[in-house]
Amino acid sequence: MRIHVINPNSTVSMTAQIGRAAQRAASTGTEIDLVTATGTPVSIEGYADEALAVPAMLAAIRTAEARGAKAHVIACFDDPGLSAAREVAAAPVIGICQAAVQVAVTLAARFSVITTLQRSVPIIEDLVESYGAGRRCRRVRAIDLPVLALDENPEDSYALLVAEIRAARDQDGAEAIVLGCAGMAEMCERLTEETGVPVIDGVTAAVRNAEALIGMGYRTSKLGGYAWPRAKTGGFAPEAA
Amino acid sequence: MRIHVINPNSTVSMTAQIGRAAQRAASTGTEIDLVTATGTPVSIEGYADEALAVPAMLAAIRTAEARGAKAHVIACFDDPGLSAAREVAAAPVIGICQAAVQVAVTLAARFSVITTLQRSVPIIEDLVESYGAGRRCRRVRAIDLPVLALDENPEDSYALLVAEIRAARDQDGAEAIVLGCAGMAEMCERLTEETGVPVIDGVTAAVRNAEALIGMGYRTSKLGGYAWPRAKTGGFAPEAA
Amino acid sequence: MRIHVINPNSTVSMTAQIGRAAQRAASTGTEIDLVTATGTPVSIEGYADEALAVPAMLAAIRTAEARGAKAHVIACFDDPGLSAAREVAAAPVIGICQAAVQVAVTLAARFSVITTLQRSVPIIEDLVESYGAGRRCRRVRAIDLPVLALDENPEDSYALLVAEIRAARDQDGAEAIVLGCAGMAEMCERLTEETGVPVIDGVTAAVRNAEALIGMGYRTSKLGGYAWPRAKTGGFAPEAA
Amino acid sequence: MRIHVINPNSTVSMTAQIGRAAQRAASTGTEIDLVTATGTPVSIEGYADEALAVPAMLAAIRTAEARGAKAHVIACFDDPGLSAAREVAAAPVIGICQAAVQVAVTLAARFSVITTLQRSVPIIEDLVESYGAGRRCRRVRAIDLPVLALDENPEDSYALLVAEIRAARDQDGAEAIVLGCAGMAEMCERLTEETGVPVIDGVTAAVRNAEALIGMGYRTSKLGGYAWPRAKTGGFAPEAA
Amino acid sequence: MRIHVINPNSTVSMTAQIGRAAQRAASTGTEIDLVTATGTPVSIEGYADEALAVPAMLAAIRTAEARGAKAHVIACFDDPGLSAAREVAAAPVIGICQAAVQVAVTLAARFSVITTLQRSVPIIEDLVESYGAGRRCRRVRAIDLPVLALDENPEDSYALLVAEIRAARDQDGAEAIVLGCAGMAEMCERLTEETGVPVIDGVTAAVRNAEALIGMGYRTSKLGGYAWPRAKTGGFAPEAA
Amino acid sequence: MRIHVINPNSTVSMTAQIGRAAQRAASTGTEIDLVTATGTPVSIEGYADEALAVPAMLAAIRTAEARGAKAHVIACFDDPGLSAAREVAAAPVIGICQAAVQVAVTLAARFSVITTLQRSVPIIEDLVESYGAGRRCRRVRAIDLPVLALDENPEDSYALLVAEIRAARDQDGAEAIVLGCAGMAEMCERLTEETGVPVIDGVTAAVRNAEALIGMGYRTSKLGGYAWPRAKTGGFAPEAA
Repeated sequence: MRIHVINPNSTVSMTAQIGRAAQRAASTGTEIDLVTATGTPVSIEGYADEALAVPAMLAAIRTAEARGAKAHVIACFDDPGLSAAREVAAAPVIGICQAAVQVAVTLAARFSVITTLQRSVPIIEDLVESYGAGRRCRRVRAIDLPVLALDENPEDSYALLVAEIRAARDQDGAEAIVLGCAGMAEMCERLTEETGVPVIDGVTAAVRNAEALIGMGYRTSKLGGYAWPRAKTGGFAPEAA
Repeated sequence: MRIHVINPNSTVSMTAQIGRAAQRAASTGTEIDLVTATGTPVSIEGYADEALAVPAMLAAIRTAEARGAKAHVIACFDDPGLSAAREVAAAPVIGICQAAVQVAVTLAARFSVITTLQRSVPIIEDLVESYGAGRRCRRVRAIDLPVLALDENPEDSYALLVAEIRAARDQDGAEAIVLGCAGMAEMCERLTEETGVPVIDGVTAAVRNAEALIGMGYRTSKLGGYAWPRAKTGGFAPEAA
Repeated sequence: MRIHVINPNSTVSMTAQIGRAAQRAASTGTEIDLVTATGTPVSIEGYADEALAVPAMLAAIRTAEARGAKAHVIACFDDPGLSAAREVAAAPVIGICQAAVQVAVTLAARFSVITTLQRSVPIIEDLVESYGAGRRCRRVRAIDLPVLALDENPEDSYALLVAEIRAARDQDGAEAIVLGCAGMAEMCERLTEETGVPVIDGVTAAVRNAEALIGMGYRTSKLGGYAWPRAKTGGFAPEAA
Repeated sequence: MRIHVINPNSTVSMTAQIGRAAQRAASTGTEIDLVTATGTPVSIEGYADEALAVPAMLAAIRTAEARGAKAHVIACFDDPGLSAAREVAAAPVIGICQAAVQVAVTLAARFSVITTLQRSVPIIEDLVESYGAGRRCRRVRAIDLPVLALDENPEDSYALLVAEIRAARDQDGAEAIVLGCAGMAEMCERLTEETGVPVIDGVTAAVRNAEALIGMGYRTSKLGGYAWPRAKTGGFAPEAA
Repeated sequence: MRIHVINPNSTVSMTAQIGRAAQRAASTGTEIDLVTATGTPVSIEGYADEALAVPAMLAAIRTAEARGAKAHVIACFDDPGLSAAREVAAAPVIGICQAAVQVAVTLAARFSVITTLQRSVPIIEDLVESYGAGRRCRRVRAIDLPVLALDENPEDSYALLVAEIRAARDQDGAEAIVLGCAGMAEMCERLTEETGVPVIDGVTAAVRNAEALIGMGYRTSKLGGYAWPRAKTGGFAPEAA
Repeated sequence: MRIHVINPNSTVSMTAQIGRAAQRAASTGTEIDLVTATGTPVSIEGYADEALAVPAMLAAIRTAEARGAKAHVIACFDDPGLSAAREVAAAPVIGICQAAVQVAVTLAARFSVITTLQRSVPIIEDLVESYGAGRRCRRVRAIDLPVLALDENPEDSYALLVAEIRAARDQDGAEAIVLGCAGMAEMCERLTEETGVPVIDGVTAAVRNAEALIGMGYRTSKLGGYAWPRAKTGGFAPEAA
């Protein structure tokens, strides 16, 4: 089975990191079709970065579907363009935030999210609320580090995350942690081991979720909110080739 | 004072209709800076159309701000890219759905929304809920007509709207109606007169709201969720010139 | 256009302050019909004060409407009797809390409210929740000062407000502040300038909102919850003369 | 123990009916201190009627407390002035809507409310929601009959209620019914017997609840939202004599 | 009237304490039918303890009903098996958490809960939310003491509770306290006296509530969610003898 | 990997059907450890049946874990004892309702649930709400057929389900259907094909979800609400052998 994993930002090194996490998550026989969006912002930190990244991401979804992708993973924690992607795809589309939250509520009664910048806190709060997990999410925390700094100073980032996980456990009563940035994926297991708190990475969760949905043969419903786009000038073709 | 009214879709005749509604709403001394987005879908019917329209719309907002716009009105009822627009603008940004809902809850204890296509029903339900008016909104109804058909068959559209308004009043207990498409703006007063139900048009509401906010001297807060975008390749400039 | 601004408490100096704020907010051509309720408590601090103020306030609304008022502003942050006022008025009725909250959610992703006494905190929390902005309001804070003390010690009050605004920004992540008492109106701009946080005053917001609604020709819906009172002994006349 | 039962409207025959229901509910040793508010509307149908009734009702509460009342029952289904009453009373104050809803959620997983006029539907919906039972309340229904007509045409009213209860059971899936008007109290048992659906009357529920609270020795908390009014011209005395 | 009070855990000394609180709460003429569940955990601290206690508790409810119980009180703050108990009983069934919360929202605008162990915090939060009082509950606090330790070290427990009540008042703005464990019942009055904060004990509240419901002649609705169990192998008899 | 699938009721033919659905869902290399609870009701239709089934089910979970189960699936749509099971297990525990709802919100903007008996409607409504999908669930419908009748009259049941699915699509605007009973699992694909509506079966969803969680190496968090039971007479051993 072929899973399309799209990094909506244009930073290739971040795609590589996402790819490593996706590969480690994938079962034997799963092929990861890893794509970096082109012409999009180098990192997604706020609503405008999201908006600029979505059209190229939607095009990539269409192309990947034509290449045979049976599910799509949007590898950015803001789940940018998730509903739009479901509209243009026949295959299921999974956002890493939604996937991680679904794992968190299965493993723990209460969880916290740790993201990069403070500006992303209301974005993620609203996202988690829209997924119905607002009451189970104790708090969305930020380590005050830009996305690309995660990669540049991995050890500093790691130390900040460890401290923040411990604060979430002790101050929020968090029983599990959701990592609020795709760029934190590779630190996930090490963080769990060091802190003793289950730490959940959305890239891993989404790839596994994609395999599960493909295995069940499910496709996005085309009966209402996610129906094919209507044919029109300036719009997407109604249906993938 | 100068108010930028952007039609996020690329249909010029629809912009003209929006412009007429905006002009009629505007006070003496208000200048409507009316813009049609370029290269965007000819109508916005669903999440993907929204996504494709937003980048051009954000660019138009920046340009209009440079031309001296003191507020921005996004003239599409899905309020596409509203948060992103607030991020790239210094001036307040008003979505016609949010503006219409704010009027509705001031005039009536319960209201219904009437939109074009069924596919837009969950989109608008989620929007109204996110604006905190979910409990006051009795129902989102659709007349099953594409956006551009409103313009092509105005009398048929009008008849469908009259019937749907009466159904909302009698079956939902709606005390006011919000028109769920910018393309319905010009029918607003006639619908009120014919049905006796207060009918609210978002374009009018947003232009008036824009004048009010400009008059108060308010600008979008740059302290958190709507902070300037961070400088980056592929992103918007952090601050308008 | 004539806007009736009613101070539901009976303190004339507070009416004067509200009047100055209203005048400053008003556009050319707007006439502020400024009224102090008679026989009501000298300040409104809690549910009983509200209840005692409402009947005289409703009578004032009826009288002002007969004088030609095209909109009514209730200039007390608890929005006392707002629904009842909508029932007895043909013109739109605006509460300064609801108006300020509508501005806050337009300018900022998250805001806090700062009021006078701790006893008002649950009142305002419930009000903000009923307006659908509960999730966007980080916290309702109090400076522990009675309403009339604002006027008596303006500089001390100002200093307390500055400190509380900074606490809201730093501890709550508030991106904007709503002033939770009509008696704070005149300090609004100075507070914004000193703290750099957008500060929203409900009197200004309501007057501007009133102008907008009058301009649109809207009147309160008489089809359901805000229908005219039924004729009865001891009740209001069903309809204004 | 002495329970003050106040009819906030000024119709003495309705007070008598409430009194009979209260007496039937009361245990041996309970004295019902039955009062008709003076100068208030003859029936309470909407927000303005409520507002006009509350000040006299608050005064009655103070007087009754001086006479030795150990609890207060507000015998109008809109629970007018409930929070204000808690502020001016030392003893617990019980609204018949809140009391009935507390019984309903104890006896049934889902219930409906049946009231008099359509105009009261949003009022009661908001009240039930504020008591936290919105999700358990299937629907608020109206029989389209003014309050005083209940008394004038008891058999017609009874027939309308029977039909509406059956509709609520069959169409809403209601497992119990809350009667949405104090004037329906005396029909409660007969309605249960005829329809087989548990029918709950708020006057009975509130008197029983009052006995329970008195027995436990509880008094209204004076630490926050229901603290004594502050001493002021035009206000209530801070504390009952 | 006969009220069945069941301690779902198997610790007889705790039943005795519950019995003393129930007796003190009961009116003259009320008979407390006090039962200790057999074979259940010695204390209920978490979901599994609850699950293990419920079948024996349901059997005890059936037996007590056959003995003439007119209401049932489940004397454990997690309200274990409350819905199931309503299904197997004709008489009303009262959980001490729900009863205490109903009292709290009558006496105070905001309250906090104080329980034993941290692990019970999410359980009680979810319970309070399901009873519709989530927004009125400031916080669920724990004193980090196992249930049985309450009895073993009453003075230490008492001191911890006093400190926690004061913290709830000062830090949470709690206006009343709900004791979150049946084993705290006997300390209730002394805690109120020492702290000046109204402290609510669920056993007392539930017994009083039971008397009220019996007095009204109410029985559990058998029309939907609490209908008699269907006859089946391994199940309960559909109806009590 | 070994997945424990427990049928909490004691009907072996139903376990067989669940087993066939689980096997069909399982990947190569997955071993389904299929267990029928012993001594529990023959079907689970209501709260009491649930309560009677849970202790044996918890014991089965402990035993299966000792046999090497790496995840547990509770194959009853009410998700009975889900939180308790998470407390006694080291491995993740998945309820088929929660798993199906997680799939539904990934594939569709709005869904409906179809269950067996009307009495289960409020149970499932509350469950879906507690999983945060209340707003996305249009309606919980029932075909008025007992659980065991599904197996006895498969073709009649099938016809009822087809009709109900079409009603959900046409009347509710449901874009996908969740089957509200484990006994409907084998009809899932045929229903999708006949109606064109994506139909989701929880057994399949849960087995796939289990594989995903096992693959990620996740285990239930033991830090709060799902911590090991405390050691006590009458309770579970704190930790699985």
